[in-house]
Amino acid sequence: MSEVRHKAELAGKVVSVLNNLTTEQKNEALLAVAKALESGCSEIIAANEEDLQRGRENGTSLSLLDRLALNPERIKGIAEGLRQIADLPDPVGDVLETIDRPNGLHIVKRRVPLGVIGIVYEARPNVTVDAMGLCLKTGNAVVLRGGSSALSSNRKIIEIIHQALAATAIPQNAVQLIEDPSRASVDEMLKLNGLLDVVIPRGGSSLIQNVVQNATVPVIETGAGICHTFLDASAQPRMATSISLNAKVQRPSVCNAMETLLVHKDFAAQHFTDLANRFKESGVELRGCEATRQLVPWAVPASDEDYATEYNDYILNVKIVNDLDEAIAHIRRFGTKHSECIVTEDTGNAERFQREVDAAAVYHNASTRFTDGFEFGFGAEIGISTQKLHARGPMGLPALTSSKYIIQGNGQIRQ
Amino acid sequence: MSEVRHKAELAGKVVSVLNNLTTEQKNEALLAVAKALESGCSEIIAANEEDLQRGRENGTSLSLLDRLALNPERIKGIAEGLRQIADLPDPVGDVLETIDRPNGLHIVKRRVPLGVIGIVYEARPNVTVDAMGLCLKTGNAVVLRGGSSALSSNRKIIEIIHQALAATAIPQNAVQLIEDPSRASVDEMLKLNGLLDVVIPRGGSSLIQNVVQNATVPVIETGAGICHTFLDASAQPRMATSISLNAKVQRPSVCNAMETLLVHKDFAAQHFTDLANRFKESGVELRGCEATRQLVPWAVPASDEDYATEYNDYILNVKIVNDLDEAIAHIRRFGTKHSECIVTEDTGNAERFQREVDAAAVYHNASTRFTDGFEFGFGAEIGISTQKLHARGPMGLPALTSSKYIIQGNGQIRQ
Repeated sequence: MSEVRHKAELAGKVVSVLNNLTTEQKNEALLAVAKALESGCSEIIAANEEDLQRGRENGTSLSLLDRLALNPERIKGIAEGLRQIADLPDPVGDVLETIDRPNGLHIVKRRVPLGVIGIVYEARPNVTVDAMGLCLKTGNAVVLRGGSSALSSNRKIIEIIHQALAATAIPQNAVQLIEDPSRASVDEMLKLNGLLDVVIPRGGSSLIQNVVQNATVPVIETGAGICHTFLDASAQPRMATSISLNAKVQRPSVCNAMETLLVHKDFAAQHFTDLANRFKESGVELRGCEATRQLVPWAVPASDEDYATEYNDYILNVKIVNDLDEAIAHIRRFGTKHSECIVTEDTGNAERFQREVDAAAVYHNASTRFTDGFEFGFGAEIGISTQKLHARGPMGLPALTSSKYIIQGNGQIRQ
Repeated sequence: MSEVRHKAELAGKVVSVLNNLTTEQKNEALLAVAKALESGCSEIIAANEEDLQRGRENGTSLSLLDRLALNPERIKGIAEGLRQIADLPDPVGDVLETIDRPNGLHIVKRRVPLGVIGIVYEARPNVTVDAMGLCLKTGNAVVLRGGSSALSSNRKIIEIIHQALAATAIPQNAVQLIEDPSRASVDEMLKLNGLLDVVIPRGGSSLIQNVVQNATVPVIETGAGICHTFLDASAQPRMATSISLNAKVQRPSVCNAMETLLVHKDFAAQHFTDLANRFKESGVELRGCEATRQLVPWAVPASDEDYATEYNDYILNVKIVNDLDEAIAHIRRFGTKHSECIVTEDTGNAERFQREVDAAAVYHNASTRFTDGFEFGFGAEIGISTQKLHARGPMGLPALTSSKYIIQGNGQIRQ
């Protein structure tokens, strides 16, 4: 039997144990793991150094090495994240609906764990701990398939997690790490219907697309964001500047950062040259439509491919539009249904934009950078769902649960 | 461009119109269609006769011909179903959550339509109307791919629907029928990411498995049910008999009918011979384990394959078990997570069964035949989801919606 199937089966065997745990038992286990990770800090850093060494030998990019690197401060942060998860309310067992039928049937819809969750991710070893914590808190077993570049770190982290779990009510088999670094192990996970209840990809768009295109197991698609900000004719110039700069440069590498600025022609005529200079001062390259380049000759011409690109970088597309309709049509064509914003003083336009733009989060007069589980007050984030089924937008703990109808009768039969 | 892609694009183009409709506009359209179907009754029956004629020439089975056949009474029932959908509350626009953040952001999570829904189904032409009604009521466009055996009926029904919609606020393009009878048109629908937001299969298990195995579009899996009833040692004999007979014979062809009866050995010793005779009188063939056959020699030996089969027929597997654990383990191995029942007077056993058995609906002392949107009081049923994401169990109108975060700010930027 393959490693993937074997470990998924082991995880499946503890699902009923996990179903029976109390919130206190789960929290105690998370706190025990947090403590063990801090105690094992130097061991983890030694293992991480092996990964970094291998990465440097293979010519891995500096930004990837940075994502991979652990230090005492980061490990402390990871452990702290687990303590925060322990502090959150446990959604499992919540009653979602109660139905009393005329025939006397009493139906309760209750939140239950999903079962076994597969997580496919890349180089960041913090995802190993974070995903484990979120899954265990919600009573799920988890099968982790991290990037091969972090394998030594992940092995050590899982060893420490397993040791810590031994003294808790959570079975060690609830946490599985796939060590096979080949692409085949990912492909196998994606087809494990009946053993995995869901697969969640966490990483860049090629990883996500591979999962979406090849999985027969249900998937929660996360991530890709070509986010727009539309500065309407009536936008307050100061607010428009502040929101659009924030959406682009506060952290360009993330999915809720802006990729394209849409500007109403009347706003552009008065304010765009100033705004463009502010972007230039912040080190942002502008790629614009013809009208943009008439106002700002130093902007590079923008192609349809540019409008369809998630740069995650200091590059911004600009398009000057005639009206709200043109802005909405552009977003319909190029948006990824993640986060979109209108800056306007016109309430009617704001309402139309928020109703007609099809995205997980639609903002009026606020930066798209707020699309985030912590910023929404969820206390945790599994990711940002860009699909419409099950969960949409920032996902908190309830996104890792399902429901079950529990029906009490006294002999009812169907007529 | 293929028919499938062309029609899915046409449907996609009216999504924003559908988003802006009021409940009243949608209801008026449904009532207009109901009336038009009744007025067009004889035309529909003539078209249906073509399908039946072709079916008879091709040697189609009587049961399939029955599912395909329409008559004035059935058409009246179909129209009545639309009127019932019009009467139901509209879930679109419901506020699911309101969050006020310390920074002043006001976040509202609102129910919205899914967008464009693909439905893949078989011979029943009533599904054409039913699925259309459920999708339009929830503000979705729908792409229907019915079985080729019902093509003439479906064409006529869609022609009548389009004529009726012409005088309403719902654009005709919101309802699309794929006429290409080839398997390729289904395969193409399953890969239409970006054009279809979800595909829902309605039909037998081979249709469902084809969709689940081949779709890259998100799927809501419905249907397959290997449902169990466990008669515990303390079960009341009369209730046990009534519930298990009802679960098997009231309508054996449906997914919530029982396929396997699990009997505690103590209950079996006292009552199983009588119960077996009741099944025999009802025309049910029993396939049993060795212990079963010692009590009821006329039972056929049951294989693992039998335990894994959804008969949808007058055949019942029986297994005599030593205790609750063995019953739960059997269900874990052979169940399809649809509907499961325990008949017992022991509250502790009932609670354990309802907690540990992983299924959409878990009954204590009531027939599994109640797993149904109408029986649960939803007033409609899209199907019974056997997956754990998005919707589980009988699905009412909310299962055809997604959500959207609408965020109001006054210039907030991320620090």
